[in-house]
Amino acid sequence: MKVVNSIKELRSHINTWKRRGHEIGLVPTMGYLHEGHKSLINAASDDNSKVVVSIFVNPIQFGANEDLDSYPRDIERDSKICEAAGADLIFNPSPEEMYGENFSTYIDVEGLTEELCGAKRPGHFRGVCTVVSKLFNIVNPTRAYFGEKDAQQLAVIKRMVADLNFDIEIIGCPIVREEDGLAKSSRNTYLSEEERKASLVLNRSLLKAKSALKEGIKDSDKLVQIISQELNKEPLAKIDYIEIVDSTSLKPVKNIDRPVLVAIAIYIGKTRLIDNFIFQ
Amino acid sequence: MKVVNSIKELRSHINTWKRRGHEIGLVPTMGYLHEGHKSLINAASDDNSKVVVSIFVNPIQFGANEDLDSYPRDIERDSKICEAAGADLIFNPSPEEMYGENFSTYIDVEGLTEELCGAKRPGHFRGVCTVVSKLFNIVNPTRAYFGEKDAQQLAVIKRMVADLNFDIEIIGCPIVREEDGLAKSSRNTYLSEEERKASLVLNRSLLKAKSALKEGIKDSDKLVQIISQELNKEPLAKIDYIEIVDSTSLKPVKNIDRPVLVAIAIYIGKTRLIDNFIFQ
Repeated sequence: MKVVNSIKELRSHINTWKRRGHEIGLVPTMGYLHEGHKSLINAASDDNSKVVVSIFVNPIQFGANEDLDSYPRDIERDSKICEAAGADLIFNPSPEEMYGENFSTYIDVEGLTEELCGAKRPGHFRGVCTVVSKLFNIVNPTRAYFGEKDAQQLAVIKRMVADLNFDIEIIGCPIVREEDGLAKSSRNTYLSEEERKASLVLNRSLLKAKSALKEGIKDSDKLVQIISQELNKEPLAKIDYIEIVDSTSLKPVKNIDRPVLVAIAIYIGKTRLIDNFIFQ
Repeated sequence: MKVVNSIKELRSHINTWKRRGHEIGLVPTMGYLHEGHKSLINAASDDNSKVVVSIFVNPIQFGANEDLDSYPRDIERDSKICEAAGADLIFNPSPEEMYGENFSTYIDVEGLTEELCGAKRPGHFRGVCTVVSKLFNIVNPTRAYFGEKDAQQLAVIKRMVADLNFDIEIIGCPIVREEDGLAKSSRNTYLSEEERKASLVLNRSLLKAKSALKEGIKDSDKLVQIISQELNKEPLAKIDYIEIVDSTSLKPVKNIDRPVLVAIAIYIGKTRLIDNFIFQ
């Protein structure tokens, strides 16, 4: 598996591919790849003749007290996963390569970033939008792939692409889960055995909410109550947020009369986990 | 002269040109073109096989009390100037075409935008960076041309292009002046005959500063004093700012031991005029 660290070298590969008429799929990741990422690479490989996976733990999307330093990294393991999933090249730049001296340009998507994770992690989406724009300009992809697990990120990226006229198709891919229902995440690796069991409460509470919606519950306060009751049964879980929002605007919805995103974030010990579903 | 209003139609022209191997020069303007713009189009035409001139009075770079509504517009006159100067196409979108419903993405270049015009026109460079990024993504040019009269704008755009990895060469073109020395500007059209005469104080004060620098003056306070003394001789002129800054970082310079930008802004009546020079 070809691993490229420099922007200049990456551009030379991209330009050769473009000249030969290839369509390029980009899968932006922070590495420590799991089945969720693999499904993105598979989708990119189905749709495009060349696939670039970027692996970059982006410092500017982490808050001061977050897990930048401890975020898991394993480029050799990631290489094998990329190769098996059909990637053509890994772009793995250093922070210095991405953020040179005097770096000072940032991108904000207003409105969409004020709720959910944006409210809990100030500056997070500014960091995401900035690095994703950089990757778009470096890779110049035909299509880019993002997981629906990071539902707010996907909505924010779609808004940014439309607003700034990036000529790139953004494709969201479904959440991939462990057999027992926990959504795949690189951060699951932080969990002790006991915490790993406790984390199942996340999906369980969402399934309860989905049943309630199917039974015709329209009041989002009632739905939040159902979810929080379930989460509170688990002593190791601490609720960060439970939100019912419009699936496009991400604005809070009181009466569920349109497609909604039901999104939750909890702490299990020190590990923050998110999960969600969209109800049409 | 071909005038295109829709992003979709413009993209189809660009894609055809790209397929045929053309290099594309972009000259972003707000229209009401003068000799300064013409020199940009000429330069673009020398360097590239296709030239796009965008004409768009960008609402988001104007403050609430600025001259958005009265800004001069004349697309027919502009068309003739573009044609004569060697442009291939004018992109003249409506505000609605550029800023659709729910538009919410903005680009900030920090640091460089806090002095000079940035301090006097909050939000101005956010508007400039956002629209220029959009134009870059729509036109996908090989090179883009900006006037050195808007010295801060040029420095900000260069920073943004480096930071966000736009694969575009940014070319600054020298200030074009009237025979009597006034820098060409679409806003000169606001001046009455009396104000037009008074406006000459702008260039005259800069020439005094340039002489002083050549004579070896190193103290920027002294230089500001020389400029303000000259400006104050003109009763119609009201100083907005006089700044001596590092020509790259735009940070104030006390002792002139490196290349500096000497930049001034004054009001003549209600009209705000800027001028500058770089001293190596």
